Amino acid sequence: MNTPTSLQAFRAVDVIRKKRDGRELTRAEIEALVNGYTKGETPDYQVSAWLMAVVLRGMSRPETAALTDAMLRSGEVLDLSALPAKKVDKHSTGGVGDKTSLVLAPLAAAAGVAVPMISGRGLGHTGGTLDKLEAIPGFNVNLPVAGFRRVLETCGCAMIGQTAEIAPADRKLYALRDVTGTVESPYLICASIMSKKLAEGIDALLLDVKTGSGAFMKSEKDAVFLAELMVETGERMGKQVVALITDMDQPLGNMIGNALEVIEGVDILRGQGPADLRDLCLELAAWMLHLGGVSKTIEDGKRRSAQLISSGAALEKFRQMIELQDGDPRVIDDAKRLPQAQHTLQVRSAKAGYLSSMQCEQIGTACVILGGGRERKEDSVDPAVGIVLHKKVGDQVSAGEPLATIYYNGEARAQRAKLLIEAIYEISDVPPARKRPLIHKIIQKSAEKI
Amino acid sequence: MNTPTSLQAFRAVDVIRKKRDGRELTRAEIEALVNGYTKGETPDYQVSAWLMAVVLRGMSRPETAALTDAMLRSGEVLDLSALPAKKVDKHSTGGVGDKTSLVLAPLAAAAGVAVPMISGRGLGHTGGTLDKLEAIPGFNVNLPVAGFRRVLETCGCAMIGQTAEIAPADRKLYALRDVTGTVESPYLICASIMSKKLAEGIDALLLDVKTGSGAFMKSEKDAVFLAELMVETGERMGKQVVALITDMDQPLGNMIGNALEVIEGVDILRGQGPADLRDLCLELAAWMLHLGGVSKTIEDGKRRSAQLISSGAALEKFRQMIELQDGDPRVIDDAKRLPQAQHTLQVRSAKAGYLSSMQCEQIGTACVILGGGRERKEDSVDPAVGIVLHKKVGDQVSAGEPLATIYYNGEARAQRAKLLIEAIYEISDVPPARKRPLIHKIIQKSAEKI
Repeated sequence: MNTPTSLQAFRAVDVIRKKRDGRELTRAEIEALVNGYTKGETPDYQVSAWLMAVVLRGMSRPETAALTDAMLRSGEVLDLSALPAKKVDKHSTGGVGDKTSLVLAPLAAAAGVAVPMISGRGLGHTGGTLDKLEAIPGFNVNLPVAGFRRVLETCGCAMIGQTAEIAPADRKLYALRDVTGTVESPYLICASIMSKKLAEGIDALLLDVKTGSGAFMKSEKDAVFLAELMVETGERMGKQVVALITDMDQPLGNMIGNALEVIEGVDILRGQGPADLRDLCLELAAWMLHLGGVSKTIEDGKRRSAQLISSGAALEKFRQMIELQDGDPRVIDDAKRLPQAQHTLQVRSAKAGYLSSMQCEQIGTACVILGGGRERKEDSVDPAVGIVLHKKVGDQVSAGEPLATIYYNGEARAQRAKLLIEAIYEISDVPPARKRPLIHKIIQKSAEKI
Repeated sequence: MNTPTSLQAFRAVDVIRKKRDGRELTRAEIEALVNGYTKGETPDYQVSAWLMAVVLRGMSRPETAALTDAMLRSGEVLDLSALPAKKVDKHSTGGVGDKTSLVLAPLAAAAGVAVPMISGRGLGHTGGTLDKLEAIPGFNVNLPVAGFRRVLETCGCAMIGQTAEIAPADRKLYALRDVTGTVESPYLICASIMSKKLAEGIDALLLDVKTGSGAFMKSEKDAVFLAELMVETGERMGKQVVALITDMDQPLGNMIGNALEVIEGVDILRGQGPADLRDLCLELAAWMLHLGGVSKTIEDGKRRSAQLISSGAALEKFRQMIELQDGDPRVIDDAKRLPQAQHTLQVRSAKAGYLSSMQCEQIGTACVILGGGRERKEDSVDPAVGIVLHKKVGDQVSAGEPLATIYYNGEARAQRAKLLIEAIYEISDVPPARKRPLIHKIIQKSAEKI
C-alpha cells in the first residue's frame, strides 16, 4: 500500500494490480513488463503473480497481440526476404502420433514453397518433431541461423530447434509458467506459439489445432477459441494465418514413437501409409501450397501434393534435407538403419466386438513410460521404443486378436505401458454410430472480437 | 505439463493449480506451502502465483484458519500463562488520527486487564502506533521478549514492535504481497493480522475494523466481511474475538501526526480531548474490560473506564509504562518536551457554510507528505509534523475561517500538503442530513459460513 514516487514509466506492481482488477493493459505496459523480465530487471515473483492474474482474468485481443509482439521483439526476427519464394510454416498444438511435419516440410518445399520450420520437443504426453528428427542418425537440429538459412536456400525447407536468439522472453516465461501453474491459458499459449513462429520471418502460417482426448484442448470449443485467438493475433501483426481444427481423439496414423514415426512419415511420402495420416497430410499440404501462392484452390493443392508424392519429388526433397542437416539419408530405403527396439510385446483384446474409443492421451503417456518421451525435462529420450496400433476406432476385433505391439528396451517399463494400454480400449457389441471427422473446422478470418 | 515423479508430499505447483482452479486446499497443503516458504525451500515466484490465485479465487473459512495457524506456528508463540490476569489486546485495521491504542493499553491495564500489545508502523496513509510511541524521547519499542514480559508483569501493559521470532512467515509473505499486488485480499489480511495477534499469547482480542474514506475497507460491507472472517478465524483457533466496525470517514479526534497524537492521547487520559475520540476510547475500553473479565456489561465497563480516567489512574499507568520502556514521562505534563515543528500554516475556508464531508485518506496522505509517514519503506519519520483540524463534519464555518493548521519543517512539503488539504473539504449551504455513527456494527459470533 506504499506508493513510492518512482521515475520509472511503469511500476511492475501497478501493472499487476491493473490486470488483477480485470482492467485492460496498454501496449506500453505490456512491453515494459516483458522487456523488464527479459533484461532481468523485473523479478520472477512479480511476473508469476502477473501470469496468474492473466490466467484468471484473461486478456483482450489487443492485449494478446501486444504480448505476442513484445515477446517476438525480445529477440532476433529472421529476415528471409532475400528468398524469392513465399515462406510458410505449419505449427501443431501437439498430439499423439502426429508426424505430419516430417511429411509437410519436404512436400511443400517440393511444390516451391519455402518452409523455415522451427520446432519443439515432446511436451507431456505429446511427441515433438525435434525428437523424431533426432531418431535419424546424425541429424542436426541445432544449426545456427546462418546454417538454417543455407539449408533453406538450397532445398526449400529446413527444420531446427529454437535458437537462443529467437524470442528469449518466451523461453524465460515458459520455464516460469511450467512451475507456477500458469501454463493453461489460451492467451499465454497463443503469445508463446505466435511469438516464436512470427520470429521465423514467414509470410503465412498454417495452424493445426488439435482437439480430443489426446490434445491439450480436449473440447472443440476450447480449440476453436485458441485457434481464433491465434488467427486474429497473426492478422493484427500483418501475417496471413489459417487454423484447421483437427481430430486427436485417437492417435494419428498407426505408429507412435520417434523412429517409428519417421518410418510412417516416409511411408506417406512414398504414397503408402495409413489413410487418416495421408488424408490429413494432403489437406494440410494443400493449405500450405495455397498460403504459399502456388495453388489457387485447396482441391488443386491436394492434387499437386498427391502428384509430388507419386512422382517421388517429395521424398527426394526429404532425402536432400536429411543430407544437408548431416543425417543419414539411407534410413529412407533401409529402416533398419534407424534405432531398433530389442523386444516387442503384444497387447491383445480381451473380448470380441468393435473398437468404439481409445483414450488417446494415455497412449502418449504409455510411450513416455517406455522412454519415448520425457517424464522430467532433463530425461533423455529413447528413439527406438514406441507403439504400433493394429486397430483404430470403428475396426472389428476378435477375442485374443492383437490391438497393438509395444516396442521396448526395458522389461519393467514395458509391463507398466502394457497395463496402461490394456485399460484404454473400449470394445462395444455394435460399431460406433458416429465417426469423428478428421477436420472439425477451418478458422480463417475471425470476426472482430474484443 | 510435465509431471515429475516426486517424493515430496505436495508439489507447490499442484497446490497453486488447485487454488487457481477454485478448489479448496487441505490444511496439510497450506502448511506445506507456508513452511516451505518460511524455510526458503519454496521460491518467491511460486508463492506469489499462489497469492494471486488466493486474491482472485478467495478462501473458505477452514482454509483461512489453516493459513492463519500455519503462519502463527511459523515462529514463537508467547506463553503468558504465568500472569494471573486475562490477556486482552486490541487491533485496529488502520486509520487517520487513530491514537486509541495509546489510551487503551494503560486504561485497560489500570482496570486489571493485562495488555501485551505488539503494534506496527504507519502503512500508506495510515499512522502506526510504533511511530507515535517513538515521538516520546527515549521510548524503546524494540524490547526483547524477556523485557516485554517484565514490563507487562510490572505495570500490566507493554507496547512493542514485531520481533523476529513472532510469525516470520507473515513478515516474509507481507513483503512479497507488497510488491506483487496481492495485499488487498480479506483472507490474506485476516491471516496476517490474526497470526501475529494470536502469537502474543492472549486470551481474547478486540478488533477495531475501520470503514469509510480514510480506511482500507472503504465500504461497510467489506469491513463487515473482514470482521466476520477474523472473528470466526479466532473462534476456530479457540480465542474469544469481538470486532467493532467503527467510522473512519473523517479523522478520529483533531490531531494527526506522531507527537500531536501523543498530546491528544494524553488529553483523553486526562479527561479532556475531543468527544469522538473519547467516546470511541470508552467504548473500546469497555469491550476490553468485558473480554478481560473485569466488567460484566459494556455499560459497566464504560463507567469503570471513565472513573479510571477521572481518578488519574489510567494516566498514571501510561506514565509508568513510558518510564519502564525508557521513555521520558515528563512529556505528559510538558508537551514542549515532545518534538516541535518549526512552523505552522493555516488552511482557511474559501466560503461560508457547513462542513459536509472531508476526504479522510487525503488527510493521511498530507501528513505523509509533511514527513509524518513513509513514502518509501526506508524513509525515516519526522515526529513533529502534522495537522490539527479546527472543524469536523457538521460544523459551521465562515469564509476565511481556519479549517486546519499545518505543523511543518519544510516549506515545499507544507505547500504540497496545503494544496492537498484545501481540496478535500466539501462545504454545503445546509448542515449534512445524516451524521455517520461512530460505531457501525458489533460482530461477535459470526454465523457459520464457508
